[in-house]
Amino acid sequence: MYGLIGKLVATEGHRGELARILLEASAAMPGCLSYVVAEDAEDSDALWVTEVWDREASHAASLSLPSVQAGIQEGKPLIAGFGDRHVTRPLGGQGLPG
Amino acid sequence: MYGLIGKLVATEGHRGELARILLEASAAMPGCLSYVVAEDAEDSDALWVTEVWDREASHAASLSLPSVQAGIQEGKPLIAGFGDRHVTRPLGGQGLPG
Repeated sequence: MYGLIGKLVATEGHRGELARILLEASAAMPGCLSYVVAEDAEDSDALWVTEVWDREASHAASLSLPSVQAGIQEGKPLIAGFGDRHVTRPLGGQGLPG
Repeated sequence: MYGLIGKLVATEGHRGELARILLEASAAMPGCLSYVVAEDAEDSDALWVTEVWDREASHAASLSLPSVQAGIQEGKPLIAGFGDRHVTRPLGGQGLPG
């Protein structure tokens, strides 16, 4: 499996809208096993996106999906910056298939 | 929902064993919606644990479960330290119920 943990910082006051766009854009992505959008409890502009994919190629391919491309275009003006980004190899756990 | 993103650093050469203990200890925790154990792709001793709970109280209660207590006792000697820790409010996404 292939995983990503990433922090996004929304432009002030736009975190909720950015989260909505991310959730809509990620609703149907082949090979995606988990994609959770979460507010940071301490930073009122920050979101965390934690992702688990069956393999890295599925993540790469998702970036070409029309729904994802539309989300990127819609969300880009609402992103002030990116924070931490970690690539992982998920081993398993609750909420994953199998 | 209540979320946690945390980094653990295993004592040298013990990451795999620590991951196994975490996965076993977390297999049956009421209110746990997602619990993923992942290797950091760049740091050969580091693990990431990303968690989603129905509410904060469920996470707190899990720490008293016999299986979790046993895992803490077994895993503690294999933990060299803790890295980043972020509390989140998950909004939704793929892999979560509902």
